[in-house]
Amino acid sequence: MAADELGEFERIRRFFAPLAGAGGLGLLDDAGLVDCRAGRSLVITADAIVAGVHYLPEDPPELVARKLLRVNLSDLAAMGARPLHYILTTALPAELGQEWLARFAQGLGEDQRHFGIELLGGDSVGTTGPAVLSLTAIGEIATGKEVRRSGAEPDDLVWVSGAIGDAFLGLRLLRGAHPDLAREDRDYLIRRFRVPDPRTELGPLLSGTAHAMIDISDGLLADLGHICETSHVSAQVELVSLPLSPAAQTIVEADPDIRPRLAAAGDDYELLFTAPAACSEAIAALRSRLGIPITRIGKIGPGAGVLLVDDRGRVIPLDHTGYRHF
Amino acid sequence: MAADELGEFERIRRFFAPLAGAGGLGLLDDAGLVDCRAGRSLVITADAIVAGVHYLPEDPPELVARKLLRVNLSDLAAMGARPLHYILTTALPAELGQEWLARFAQGLGEDQRHFGIELLGGDSVGTTGPAVLSLTAIGEIATGKEVRRSGAEPDDLVWVSGAIGDAFLGLRLLRGAHPDLAREDRDYLIRRFRVPDPRTELGPLLSGTAHAMIDISDGLLADLGHICETSHVSAQVELVSLPLSPAAQTIVEADPDIRPRLAAAGDDYELLFTAPAACSEAIAALRSRLGIPITRIGKIGPGAGVLLVDDRGRVIPLDHTGYRHF
Repeated sequence: MAADELGEFERIRRFFAPLAGAGGLGLLDDAGLVDCRAGRSLVITADAIVAGVHYLPEDPPELVARKLLRVNLSDLAAMGARPLHYILTTALPAELGQEWLARFAQGLGEDQRHFGIELLGGDSVGTTGPAVLSLTAIGEIATGKEVRRSGAEPDDLVWVSGAIGDAFLGLRLLRGAHPDLAREDRDYLIRRFRVPDPRTELGPLLSGTAHAMIDISDGLLADLGHICETSHVSAQVELVSLPLSPAAQTIVEADPDIRPRLAAAGDDYELLFTAPAACSEAIAALRSRLGIPITRIGKIGPGAGVLLVDDRGRVIPLDHTGYRHF
Repeated sequence: MAADELGEFERIRRFFAPLAGAGGLGLLDDAGLVDCRAGRSLVITADAIVAGVHYLPEDPPELVARKLLRVNLSDLAAMGARPLHYILTTALPAELGQEWLARFAQGLGEDQRHFGIELLGGDSVGTTGPAVLSLTAIGEIATGKEVRRSGAEPDDLVWVSGAIGDAFLGLRLLRGAHPDLAREDRDYLIRRFRVPDPRTELGPLLSGTAHAMIDISDGLLADLGHICETSHVSAQVELVSLPLSPAAQTIVEADPDIRPRLAAAGDDYELLFTAPAACSEAIAALRSRLGIPITRIGKIGPGAGVLLVDDRGRVIPLDHTGYRHF
């Protein structure tokens, strides 16, 4: 039976109601509830993805669900917020069967348990076009403690979590590039493209330390550009400092021209932030505490613009400073 | 120039950033902020609409925007909540021009001023299919004061705001029915279909009085059915009590068979609620204070199910107890 034959009520009852927490009121009411705590602010973000634009229609539905959820959690982390709830609207074509929806809901269920969050409400409608999935995520932070893009200051150091360029390389592998890469490296890079790891632990811990923060979705240089624009500063990034995973390192060793492209590649969902030099020890302590790489990659200056430089400080020209979805 | 040629950033900067309030941070950050007040809960609801399914692609874009916003505000009102913010994601086909987007944003701007709310954030992407517009609305209520669907009790009276069936008749007019209806009646009914009036003032005032409440989107009988199901009660509605607008009355006088269909017609976005008989005077006072009709149309009983009865208490059989979009 096609998912649309179930009707909206049954579709919601069967697949989405089991994901609703106490605030979602079993999805039986007109709206969901979030209790407010004094001295707290809610942080709210939304992303929409379209089949054939942001993901491939044949992608495993559980991974589509998890990526949609995770890119939103990454936005919350970039503000320093702890995730609480999400709201989902789906516009689905009739030909998507119940199995697709069941697997999509299963992916959400796995990840909401992993991140300790719950579905609060939403809507599920039909469309004559490709599936459009829209997710609004809600997090919490102590009022005034959010980390904005606009707080970077000259002489701040620039830091990034995790490894850069994995998602870009994963997408290249899916398109047939680097066919002789070892299986485990392939699997790792493709997984990084399909299921990003939002830094939901690190983000809140950087509130009070980071001057400015963003998550990398458009590409490291483009997103650093967003920080510089809103902060009215410039930035310089050292290519040699970019943290690469062992799998990415293997590819770069065989094809060194790829390295600068990784600085422009998107979909990493790592945290990119600036902090005064005096905080470097505190950041190193976070690195040990969480067991994840946090790497200093550059420096903020006065003026405007983002430069990528080599190990002798020479500017590396770039064809791509942004990143486009397939 | 087509709207998609602008790119996401420019589309957001030009059309949506001017709608953002303080909490939206100029749409320049990863997320928007809502400050919490102690003793308050946030109430959150979402609806998605699709071109060709929930509205016609040739409908005036400002009216599409206003209806999308208003149906969500109606859901907040049905919980007793006061609206604060909204989040919008749009998936738009390339052939929608900038003019469409400009008029859509203008409609949002007019209504957000009217209702005193602000855009908090969102996303804007392209799609190869019909436009999908998804809106999440956020309201506020004193914690524990929300009106649920599940609170109806036997011997409660059933009340409805405004007039019933106007939107259904407006849609019929757009499809060519009743061609000889007077111009002002036509305009009134079509407007009621295109731009519902969510009861944002009445809803919060019913908190503490109404036992159960819902807004009418699926149809009066179907939505009363939702209250009865979740409250584990039955309801009886008197056909003769249904409040009709003068325009609807004119049509019903010419074609009496239409009257029972209005009880099943959707898209009214009036508030349907139950309250103990002892509250009838308080409800009459609200009617005078707000200057809007609030009409007693029936009664809650034990058991299950919703019956429509005539002025002698005889059950009226109904072909349609729900309502489907065109």
